Amino acid sequence: MNQPSNHFQFSIQKKLSKNSMARAGVISTPHGDMQTPAFITVGTAATVKAVTPEQVQQLGAQAVLANTYHLYLRPGEDIIQKAGGLHTFMHWPGPMFTDSGGFQVFSLGEAFGKGISKVAGGEDSKSSVNERISQAKKAKITDEGVTFWSHIDGSKHELNPEKSMQIQHALGADIIFAFDECTSPHAPRAYQEIALNRTHAWAARSLHEHQKLNATQANYQALYGVVQGGQFQDLRELSATTLAEMDFDGFGIGGSFTKDDIATAVGWVTAKLPEAKPRHLLGMGEVIDLFKGIEAGIDTFDCVSPTRIARNGTVYTAKGRVSLTNAKYATSLKPIDSQCSCYTCQNFSTAYLNHLIKAGEMLSATLLSIHNLHFVTDLVDQIRKSLLDDSFFDFKKQYLANYY
Amino acid sequence: MNQPSNHFQFSIQKKLSKNSMARAGVISTPHGDMQTPAFITVGTAATVKAVTPEQVQQLGAQAVLANTYHLYLRPGEDIIQKAGGLHTFMHWPGPMFTDSGGFQVFSLGEAFGKGISKVAGGEDSKSSVNERISQAKKAKITDEGVTFWSHIDGSKHELNPEKSMQIQHALGADIIFAFDECTSPHAPRAYQEIALNRTHAWAARSLHEHQKLNATQANYQALYGVVQGGQFQDLRELSATTLAEMDFDGFGIGGSFTKDDIATAVGWVTAKLPEAKPRHLLGMGEVIDLFKGIEAGIDTFDCVSPTRIARNGTVYTAKGRVSLTNAKYATSLKPIDSQCSCYTCQNFSTAYLNHLIKAGEMLSATLLSIHNLHFVTDLVDQIRKSLLDDSFFDFKKQYLANYY
Repeated sequence: MNQPSNHFQFSIQKKLSKNSMARAGVISTPHGDMQTPAFITVGTAATVKAVTPEQVQQLGAQAVLANTYHLYLRPGEDIIQKAGGLHTFMHWPGPMFTDSGGFQVFSLGEAFGKGISKVAGGEDSKSSVNERISQAKKAKITDEGVTFWSHIDGSKHELNPEKSMQIQHALGADIIFAFDECTSPHAPRAYQEIALNRTHAWAARSLHEHQKLNATQANYQALYGVVQGGQFQDLRELSATTLAEMDFDGFGIGGSFTKDDIATAVGWVTAKLPEAKPRHLLGMGEVIDLFKGIEAGIDTFDCVSPTRIARNGTVYTAKGRVSLTNAKYATSLKPIDSQCSCYTCQNFSTAYLNHLIKAGEMLSATLLSIHNLHFVTDLVDQIRKSLLDDSFFDFKKQYLANYY
Repeated sequence: MNQPSNHFQFSIQKKLSKNSMARAGVISTPHGDMQTPAFITVGTAATVKAVTPEQVQQLGAQAVLANTYHLYLRPGEDIIQKAGGLHTFMHWPGPMFTDSGGFQVFSLGEAFGKGISKVAGGEDSKSSVNERISQAKKAKITDEGVTFWSHIDGSKHELNPEKSMQIQHALGADIIFAFDECTSPHAPRAYQEIALNRTHAWAARSLHEHQKLNATQANYQALYGVVQGGQFQDLRELSATTLAEMDFDGFGIGGSFTKDDIATAVGWVTAKLPEAKPRHLLGMGEVIDLFKGIEAGIDTFDCVSPTRIARNGTVYTAKGRVSLTNAKYATSLKPIDSQCSCYTCQNFSTAYLNHLIKAGEMLSATLLSIHNLHFVTDLVDQIRKSLLDDSFFDFKKQYLANYY
């Protein structure tokens, strides 16, 4: 087999000492580098909602993560492959991730309504979520794979490790994830053990299929294994050590976490993962999560919140989330944040943004998404700088003292 | 009275002979020049729907027209004036128009449901139009002015020539329109005569109030009188000659037209208007309208169609309108038009656009609006070139032969 030259590389530039696993580094991919820690912008259906790729670049985002489940169902991976892959299809030239589809399948199936706390099904519109709820059926899981029903039209589909790899190779993202079973945090320990064994078997099958596919293509795609294990320390550690022995390029950490879990549960995992490989915390990216995750050794994050709350008229500020629908913003000619360098804050007042929201104008989603994505991206960049110049703990303390 | 220096100027660069009143020129305003004929992009509620001001500039638009009725009701002219005017409020640095509010008041009131064929109330969302219809009451018209009820909350308001001028001066657009009565084309001749007399009296009152306001401000605002008269040639001509004697900077042509009217009714009017002043055809801008209007001596147009049909998944092409929801576009990796230089056609396939539309993604409205606005803007630019190099009739013949 002729392996394509491996353009995937992770180099650590700086490690913190002082009881922290935090590090700053660079992830290199065939479509460019990411300075880590990095916040990865979510582009569920091959679009960062309401924002053009140029606007995504201009706000400082380094990479985009799209959802395999959504793209498999619509428009289908075939047309994307024919287009030359996701990069060309959605006109995003930089590094790109796809997830495995597992989270969406399970959050809409076995775990549906049982406390999968991240946004089920990625970032659909409210009407689409309602439609999905009315059509939701349980996904059926066997050791072979999963049978599930489309949230769009109720049609029946199968997904398994091999098929997830085939789809993700057709999509052509730089970093892809092994197919895993994402359990409900309320599932009993006995079930978590069964599911974890399955996730590990699926990790091996994903890796095998991935290596076969990678050998036939020009662009190297990196595969991350996904650590599961619920809220149980021993299972999380078992998962990390099991996957660490496999030839993955990096690791995702999946499942649901409470805010308090992040420092602990993520730390259990990163302590057991090989230091030299990058770690991605799947679907988490609130301000507190970012500090805690980075301190626990996370390199990249993705989260739908910045664009989702933007569409509801809510923005991030250094003092916390703020709803611009509040009447006091209707008469303020100041930007959201006079210190903010984003396009929105440089050019528009909250009075204007409040007006757009009240008038139901689509431009409000665009302008607020730009601000929120810039806010989170910029915060992680600041954290990165604080790691490089050894001021992380001071920066964290100062930042969180003002944030509520 | 200290008149501010008059930065408004219209110069004609080229006139066609051969039974045509078509001309190419330049309108200069305090916020820049417009090369005419020009298509003016509509930004009803102080935003070109789903498009940033930078994107509006990049697609080639020279000016934006906002709706006084909408901005008066929400957010109110006070906050816009405090922001420094519409230019600053919506971050549009170029030439700007506002209409008088009359069209919306009458299309929602006296003429409601009686065949005012342009998009009633500007460019609201469908749900907002439904809401308005359910709340619609007749506007009450006297010689003094109009009483109407808000389509947003049903609240009662008064609008008259003086108030329209005060609002439009608070908004601060470069070109504003006199308050007129826009009649239903189905109104009997007797009513058209009454309404026309009122429009002329209101034109004089608008001009008087406008001159008073202009004298107190730094930026000169130009005022256009609005020609009415329904489908009656003698009334249209009377209106044009009456307004021509007043000290307007230019003229709007209002009312509803059928496609066939444009060449005739518009021609009746332009033949009577002073050649040296610019003429704007209000609310018209389909492809055929553009050719006919320009041939009849129109300098500028505005129309909501490019952005409204974009939000329904429809685009303009050199062969006519096309719905990108058609299944054949789901598998085509070509752009909408491989000859088109717009951002959308340069970077995205119809397969991608079809996907965005089906997935209900806001980005489809942005990308299709950019294409449609560029299409119409560019067509008028091409017509302008054909006027300058004396190829207008050949260009028109060739273009319309392919357009259906």
